[in-house]
Amino acid sequence: MKDNERIEILSQRLVTWAKWFVKQQVACGDICVDATVGNGFDTLFLAECVGPEGKVYGFDIQQSALDKTKKLLSEAGLLDRVYLFHDSHSNLGTYLSHSTVKVVMFNLGYLPGGDHSLITKPETTIQALKAALPLLTTDGIITVVSYRGHRGAMEEYNAVNVFLSEINSKKYRVFCIDILNQDNLPPVLFVVHRYR
Amino acid sequence: MKDNERIEILSQRLVTWAKWFVKQQVACGDICVDATVGNGFDTLFLAECVGPEGKVYGFDIQQSALDKTKKLLSEAGLLDRVYLFHDSHSNLGTYLSHSTVKVVMFNLGYLPGGDHSLITKPETTIQALKAALPLLTTDGIITVVSYRGHRGAMEEYNAVNVFLSEINSKKYRVFCIDILNQDNLPPVLFVVHRYR
Repeated sequence: MKDNERIEILSQRLVTWAKWFVKQQVACGDICVDATVGNGFDTLFLAECVGPEGKVYGFDIQQSALDKTKKLLSEAGLLDRVYLFHDSHSNLGTYLSHSTVKVVMFNLGYLPGGDHSLITKPETTIQALKAALPLLTTDGIITVVSYRGHRGAMEEYNAVNVFLSEINSKKYRVFCIDILNQDNLPPVLFVVHRYR
Repeated sequence: MKDNERIEILSQRLVTWAKWFVKQQVACGDICVDATVGNGFDTLFLAECVGPEGKVYGFDIQQSALDKTKKLLSEAGLLDRVYLFHDSHSNLGTYLSHSTVKVVMFNLGYLPGGDHSLITKPETTIQALKAALPLLTTDGIITVVSYRGHRGAMEEYNAVNVFLSEINSKKYRVFCIDILNQDNLPPVLFVVHRYR
């Protein structure tokens, strides 16, 4: 998606909406976080967004995800600006300083093509969101793609929804983007914007 | 909002989001509808979007709203492409043919600066939405800014939400954009995209 091309966002999946919002906020040299590395596509996207002066921190508890992502970024020649951690995103605060991060992306659920019983969980997801909020610079955002279809997904979606509905409105504005008329409960996109 | 400028949409009110979505869809020569003319700002916006070859149809049950809007458009030199009707938006289907309209904008509630007891009502709003759906061309959209704060607003919001949640998913996709962490129940934006 180039900035000046017609966006056709209404035809896109919500994961593409998340990227679109990220693209609007990120500038060269920014620090961004992929809180759920998975197959590394968002990590790669963020690495492209931040440019050669920027940095991307990626977290995953599955070594196989990190290995795949390392390969993907290496092939793209962008590995030097990416730091991958074999750790839960709930610990991301220990690797980063307050008010330094422009974007934190979450794509919840299981690793596509991996073990579907290994899913993100409400407790650690909320811990990770709590850790991510103070990291954001002014005009920074957190994007969360939250699923409702797989076993355990609805509990996590509800927990995220309740948590984000109660965060400080004097600093953050939380947008929720939902597709209504679908039988199969599509994902929901949350965008947290630190506006002050 | 120019197409190629950085959009900063996250800092904008949802009425501006509605305009942004409209801007993505409309081309010169299109036919658009302002279903709730009010002070005429959306009518003017649509008249600018459709260009000299396009047409805008506007509906309002308050003559004072239509008079103001006529003046606004006349001053902007755009009145020749605008057709204003002193009628309920629930009758908009009688003025327009199927599959010809690119955009229908609804901004529900009362006329700002007018009589706050004169509000859009669930029954007529749903009738108007029902009338608007078959008018949309492929890739056309309906935007609805629905309020929850004034007396009677929540009933209307709930009715719109239920109605739009049940429309044909094989033809239309309904997005709901909501701001979560606010005490004062901000408006909600619905965007109906006819994708087929």
